[in-house]
Amino acid sequence: MDTLKEYKALLAEIGKLDSAASLLEWDERTYIPQKGHDARSEVLGKVSKLGFELFISDRMGKYLEDLNREEVLASLSEKDRASVRWMTHDYNRLKAIPPDLFEQYTIDCSKSEFAWEQAKAESSFELFQPHLQKMVDYARQFAELYGYDENPYDALLEGYEPGMTTRDLKAIVEPLREALVSLLDRVTEQGTPPDTSFLEGDFPVDKQRELCMRALEAMHFDSDAGRLDVSVHPFTTRVGPGDVRITTRYMENRLLSSLFGTIHEGGHALYDQGIDPDLTWTGLDTGASMGIHESQSRLWENQVGRSLAFWRFFYPQLQEVLPEFEEIPVEEFYRAVNEAQRSLIRVEADELTYNLHIMLRFELEEALVNRRIEVKDLPEIWNDAMERYLRLTPPDDAHGVLQDVHWSGGMIGYFPSYMLGNLYAAQFFATAKREIGDLEERIERGDLLTLREWLREKIHKYGRMYSPSELAEKVSGEKLNPRHFVEYVTSKFSDVYRL
Amino acid sequence: MDTLKEYKALLAEIGKLDSAASLLEWDERTYIPQKGHDARSEVLGKVSKLGFELFISDRMGKYLEDLNREEVLASLSEKDRASVRWMTHDYNRLKAIPPDLFEQYTIDCSKSEFAWEQAKAESSFELFQPHLQKMVDYARQFAELYGYDENPYDALLEGYEPGMTTRDLKAIVEPLREALVSLLDRVTEQGTPPDTSFLEGDFPVDKQRELCMRALEAMHFDSDAGRLDVSVHPFTTRVGPGDVRITTRYMENRLLSSLFGTIHEGGHALYDQGIDPDLTWTGLDTGASMGIHESQSRLWENQVGRSLAFWRFFYPQLQEVLPEFEEIPVEEFYRAVNEAQRSLIRVEADELTYNLHIMLRFELEEALVNRRIEVKDLPEIWNDAMERYLRLTPPDDAHGVLQDVHWSGGMIGYFPSYMLGNLYAAQFFATAKREIGDLEERIERGDLLTLREWLREKIHKYGRMYSPSELAEKVSGEKLNPRHFVEYVTSKFSDVYRL
Repeated sequence: MDTLKEYKALLAEIGKLDSAASLLEWDERTYIPQKGHDARSEVLGKVSKLGFELFISDRMGKYLEDLNREEVLASLSEKDRASVRWMTHDYNRLKAIPPDLFEQYTIDCSKSEFAWEQAKAESSFELFQPHLQKMVDYARQFAELYGYDENPYDALLEGYEPGMTTRDLKAIVEPLREALVSLLDRVTEQGTPPDTSFLEGDFPVDKQRELCMRALEAMHFDSDAGRLDVSVHPFTTRVGPGDVRITTRYMENRLLSSLFGTIHEGGHALYDQGIDPDLTWTGLDTGASMGIHESQSRLWENQVGRSLAFWRFFYPQLQEVLPEFEEIPVEEFYRAVNEAQRSLIRVEADELTYNLHIMLRFELEEALVNRRIEVKDLPEIWNDAMERYLRLTPPDDAHGVLQDVHWSGGMIGYFPSYMLGNLYAAQFFATAKREIGDLEERIERGDLLTLREWLREKIHKYGRMYSPSELAEKVSGEKLNPRHFVEYVTSKFSDVYRL
Repeated sequence: MDTLKEYKALLAEIGKLDSAASLLEWDERTYIPQKGHDARSEVLGKVSKLGFELFISDRMGKYLEDLNREEVLASLSEKDRASVRWMTHDYNRLKAIPPDLFEQYTIDCSKSEFAWEQAKAESSFELFQPHLQKMVDYARQFAELYGYDENPYDALLEGYEPGMTTRDLKAIVEPLREALVSLLDRVTEQGTPPDTSFLEGDFPVDKQRELCMRALEAMHFDSDAGRLDVSVHPFTTRVGPGDVRITTRYMENRLLSSLFGTIHEGGHALYDQGIDPDLTWTGLDTGASMGIHESQSRLWENQVGRSLAFWRFFYPQLQEVLPEFEEIPVEEFYRAVNEAQRSLIRVEADELTYNLHIMLRFELEEALVNRRIEVKDLPEIWNDAMERYLRLTPPDDAHGVLQDVHWSGGMIGYFPSYMLGNLYAAQFFATAKREIGDLEERIERGDLLTLREWLREKIHKYGRMYSPSELAEKVSGEKLNPRHFVEYVTSKFSDVYRL
């Protein structure tokens, strides 16, 4: 079938341009000399635009139209059908926004991100407010253009978590919030907090790097098909097949920041390294959704990296690199890396409180999009919500409503993915434990390969073939169920806090 | 004038794609993980092809046709006129080769390079011969397609040294060869060779890197607009304005390889960093020719880096990093870094013998293209020529005719650029000495900025606005004159060898 062949060739072209764009971006955040930034933005803009234009081209429209004819679709392989399904999904969304509007949006995003940086530095919501207003206006407008059944916020969610709705989310949030708040109360009121004093100190960068490399090796990250570098904000990027790069950052006085950051990004990287090579440049060589991708990073960071089993295996290696830990028992170290406390900043939050930060943002975003609240009132609303969710009041907006970059770049509807990632991680790990009878013993022996292979076989290799909820059912036999997360944190924090 | 605007916009598009391609290539030689190579070739191929197709597009042809009309040309600024001149030059050459032929050539080049690697490893000319035959056939065919007045070899030279002819080259080679051979005889027969024993030893990579960074700093390489990394074959690349990257390689037992390599690439980099920002993405933001570019690397490596004045300034820094040199007087060190001897391998040759290696290759290339000799006889012809030029006989073809990569990639007509670089370097440096009265004293004081500024003002800023010989006249008041080189080496080696 010629159309299929041409369609695939066009996707491959786009894939190659995306690969070039990924490298330009990776370099922009790692090695580019300072004076190279201006030209780089232009080059990256050009290369990205070429790929984008090919994707929304009439050619692509024609191919998709042909391939979506019932009898044609029926004749396709499962992979090709999945490709047509998701490329049609993306094509329709992108075509829904008129090009001129999208161009203006891109320009406004870049101004807004710049304004946010300044606003955060000066803790001045006023500076950011007009830009945020624009971003919220765009979100409202885009939601109408994308279309939705029930709630305009659904149209935004769809961009990050296909199939997820506001109604679904609310059904998850209510009981989860109740369970977490009650557990958090018990932990802080009746629990025995771990000693964390030994986590502060002077940890040379080369030793931290050594530990990060050992952790990646233990996870069976393929170093011949990837790299670890340094950037201000850690990230993972799939430059192409056989080339998945992660970054971390080293703070001399904080041992765990680089290590858990690396394990987290390493989890993303294992997903990207595990995608079936057959899916290369089909548009499916990516994760099923932001939430599913995040489930992989969180599973490795938390279910594995913050477990006693992992530290029984890895602690001797840490002690070898940092002999000052020889006096600290592994159980105490394990308790220390699981300290839980109410805090103001999402990115520093622990497993127990993290989802509360997300719920707050979801609540505000959804209300903004539905015009139940307005941008100008956000600082006050934020602070009230912090009181309700975490019983804290930010000292200023930099530690409150201005803390995250997302809204400044128009990413409204993204935050729930972080929470979904945590929930999926717990659900998938519970399934893995059930299916691999002795998983914990294996981890304790340093066998992380069994888990990596299980994840690859059940999740990674499929790339973006399935929707998040299809994948969840395929992997665990049920749709997303927050019970697994509640059981996981209840058990872990009861143990850590000796409840 | 709309055409001019559109023409510039098209050049900018091409420039941005070239910038992306440069980064893809840089990364391929520095940081790419091993399993990323296959996909990278495809991505680089795609991005390069996009730029190439835009350059030879009918649109470009139309713009150039319009802009080359006499009355239009007369109305252009000097820079725009230069752009139209050189883009027309390149366009006509690229259009001279039918696309199918060019595609086949590209494929054959890649096979040929692969075969050469094997052939060199096994020192088997037989393995390489059929591929080299193809490359020579292409060169002969391309020469006819490009067109020439006198000698088909001129058509090939034109791709690297616009305006240079075989006749010009021969006029340079004859007397130069005579002068060099006679000087080399005096040096080897009557000279006092320097002691070089202290150049062997164990020089840790981090100390070598420290020295390289200090040398770049002394040269006023702008580290905010560039980087130094490591690769197997050192190179310089201009990723874009404000982003010029060089590489070096470190060999623990050879101190000078990384240092002089870095100074050499640093010379290329200063050229690229010094191009007038107005020329960005005009097609003129590159060097005037391969030879002129090489003149800048060689000037810094040899006229500066191997001078006594430079070492009077830089030696204390070297001694600080490598205290084992405290006992060696600077004059002895200076003599050691200028050791001259007949040797088999071009890339390891010193200033005195290097041009002889080039003359040999020029002689053979020109005879091949003109069918006065044939590929199958090359090993024998090579060895005879080595005897004539350097009184040496290679022990095998790996140390003879198979030593260089150039021919395997179809680069026939390139070698003379190296020699021209040496000659231009001497000519430009002689001019600089004349115009900056106390240049040597300045270098001895560590003031390399005066020289860098002089080069920037006279050469770098113009990018590719002028042909090599126009530029030579503009800088030095005369066309290329090998006398300057002969005077330079005679004076230096008389001093070093105490003649």
